[in-house]
Amino acid sequence: MQSDLVAALDIGGTKIAGALVDGRGRMLLRVQRPTPAREGAETVMGAVEEVLAELAASPLWPDAGAVGIGSAGPVDASAGRVSPVNVPGWRGYPLVERVRRATGGLPVQLVGDGVAMTAAEHWRGAARGYDNALCMVVSTGVGGGLVLDGRLHTGPTGNAGHIGHISVDLDGDPCPCGSRGCVERIASGPNIARRALDNGWRPGPDGDATAAAVAASARAGDPIATASFERAARALAAGIAATATLVEIDIAVIGGGVAGAGDVLFAPLRRALRDYATLSFVQRLKVAPALTGGDAGLLGAAAAAAPARRGPHAVTFSG
Amino acid sequence: MQSDLVAALDIGGTKIAGALVDGRGRMLLRVQRPTPAREGAETVMGAVEEVLAELAASPLWPDAGAVGIGSAGPVDASAGRVSPVNVPGWRGYPLVERVRRATGGLPVQLVGDGVAMTAAEHWRGAARGYDNALCMVVSTGVGGGLVLDGRLHTGPTGNAGHIGHISVDLDGDPCPCGSRGCVERIASGPNIARRALDNGWRPGPDGDATAAAVAASARAGDPIATASFERAARALAAGIAATATLVEIDIAVIGGGVAGAGDVLFAPLRRALRDYATLSFVQRLKVAPALTGGDAGLLGAAAAAAPARRGPHAVTFSG
Repeated sequence: MQSDLVAALDIGGTKIAGALVDGRGRMLLRVQRPTPAREGAETVMGAVEEVLAELAASPLWPDAGAVGIGSAGPVDASAGRVSPVNVPGWRGYPLVERVRRATGGLPVQLVGDGVAMTAAEHWRGAARGYDNALCMVVSTGVGGGLVLDGRLHTGPTGNAGHIGHISVDLDGDPCPCGSRGCVERIASGPNIARRALDNGWRPGPDGDATAAAVAASARAGDPIATASFERAARALAAGIAATATLVEIDIAVIGGGVAGAGDVLFAPLRRALRDYATLSFVQRLKVAPALTGGDAGLLGAAAAAAPARRGPHAVTFSG
Repeated sequence: MQSDLVAALDIGGTKIAGALVDGRGRMLLRVQRPTPAREGAETVMGAVEEVLAELAASPLWPDAGAVGIGSAGPVDASAGRVSPVNVPGWRGYPLVERVRRATGGLPVQLVGDGVAMTAAEHWRGAARGYDNALCMVVSTGVGGGLVLDGRLHTGPTGNAGHIGHISVDLDGDPCPCGSRGCVERIASGPNIARRALDNGWRPGPDGDATAAAVAASARAGDPIATASFERAARALAAGIAATATLVEIDIAVIGGGVAGAGDVLFAPLRRALRDYATLSFVQRLKVAPALTGGDAGLLGAAAAAAPARRGPHAVTFSG
C-alpha cells in the first residue's frame, strides 16, 4: 500500500489535469480534459468530475489519501472557493466542497496556481533545499509564491506571492488590475511584445509577434527587442528585490514561457538585481530557471495535499 | 518568582535603553544611557554593560530568564552581530556573545529595530489579535517588520520587513542604499521636508523646516505642504499594497514621527491604498496608527526574548 499517494488537480483556463502522485513526486497516472471555459459552472465541474472519475478507475485510487488542487486565481482557500479570471462561469465557486463530495469525502487542499508552482519547485525543482524562496511564472501573466522558514507561505486566502501585481512604478501605466506600474504590466510576455512593437520592432515573415519572437530577434542582436527584454528584466528585478527585502529569500526561481528566453532575460535580470537588491542581507540572492515545467501545477497540488496525508511538505493556512 | 520576566535592550544611534519586562508587558525597571556613537567599539559596549549592570542591581534581576535585544540595523541575527549605520565603531560587532557574557550566560535573542517595533505592536499595540500584519516606523528613516501566520517573521538574518528600501519607482531618484525610488527616499520625514522646500514651501518665523512643520502648514491648508505629504502617502501606499499582495496582511500599523502628522498623512494614505491595493484579497486591508510609542523598542525586545523563556510570543529564525 502506498499511504503517501495523493490525487492532484491542476485547473487552468485551457485544461483541467489530474494525476495520482506518490510521495516521491512520481506521476503514476495522468489524465486531462480541455476546460469548457465559456460554459456554465456545472459544465466546467463536469469536466473536473470526468478527470476524477478517470483517476478513480485506477486500481491505485483506494490508496489516495487526499486531494490537492492548484487553481487559476483568484482563489479563496479559507472558503474553499475559486473565481478563475478565465473561467467566468465560476465566481466564488465552492470547488473544495464539490471535489470532496465527488471523491467520497477525501480531505481537499486548495491553493492558487502560483503557490502550487512554488510547492512543486520547492519539492522537486530549483528551490529544493532552500528554506526561503520566491518562485515565479512569467508568461501571459506573472504569478508566484513563497517558501518562508522552510514552509509554503500561502496566506489566509491562498494567494500570497502575487508578485505580478505589486507596483514597481507608482506613476506607471494603468494595469488591468486597477493599479499602476505592476510587474506584470511591464514584464509579461504580451507586454514585452507590445513594447517592442510600439518602439518599431517588426515580426519576421512568419508574422509571429509573441515575446518568443522578440526573444529570437534579441538573440540576433536587434536593439529594440533587446531593450524590451531589458525593461522587463528591470521590473522583475525591482519586484524580486522588494520581495527579498521584505521577507528575506535566498533564491528566486523563474519559470513560464518568458523564462524560456534564457539569457535574453536572465542576463539583464541578474545585472538589474545588482541595482535594486542593495542591502547587505539581500546581496547574495540567487536567480535560477524553474525545473518542473508543465507538470508544476500537478506536482505542486500534490505537495499542497501533503499535510492531509501527513507528508513531508507541510502547508499552513492561517486566518 | 516571576518566571516570565526578561531583560530588554533597545540600542539606537542616540540612546541605549534597558528594562526588566514582565509577561504582561509591564516595565518594572527602565534605565537609559546616551549612545557614545562616535566612540570605539568597546566604549559603546561599555555603555551597554552599564545599562545591564543597573538592571542587574535590581532585586528582580535573578528572575530574568532571558535577554532580548532590538538594535538599529543592519543586524545579522544568525551570527549574533550588529552593524548599526549610526554607530560606526560597531561593524559586525558580536553583541549577542558580549551580552551573554555580561549576563552570566543568559540566552540572548537579537532582532532589528523594525522587527522589535513590530513585536511590540503585535503584543501590546494596534496589531494585537492580527495574525498577519505589517508594522512600520516612518521617521528619519522608514523601517518595519512582519507578523505572518501569527508569528513574528524575522527572516534568517533578522532583517525582514525592511519596507523602507523596496523600490516603488524603478526609475526614481537614487537612494543612499544604492537603489532607486525606495519608499524611504520618498516618504521619510527629511524627504517630505526636502520636497516641500524644493517646491517653494518656506518655514515659518521659527525656522522649523522639519516634516512636523510641513505637516502644520498642510493642516493650515498650504497646498505645497499638502502635496508633499500626499506624495509620501502614495509611496507608502504602494509599499504597503506590495507587502499585502506578496504575503497577505490584514493590517498595516504606522508609527514614528511622521505618523504624528495624523490625518495629514493617514487620509491621503487611505485614499492611495484604494489605488494600489486592488486584488480581492487585499482590499480589506486596514491602516492604523501605532500605539506603543517610545517604549516600542524595549517592549519588542522583550517579546523577542519570549521563546527563550518559552513565553507566548514565539520568534522563529530559519536558516
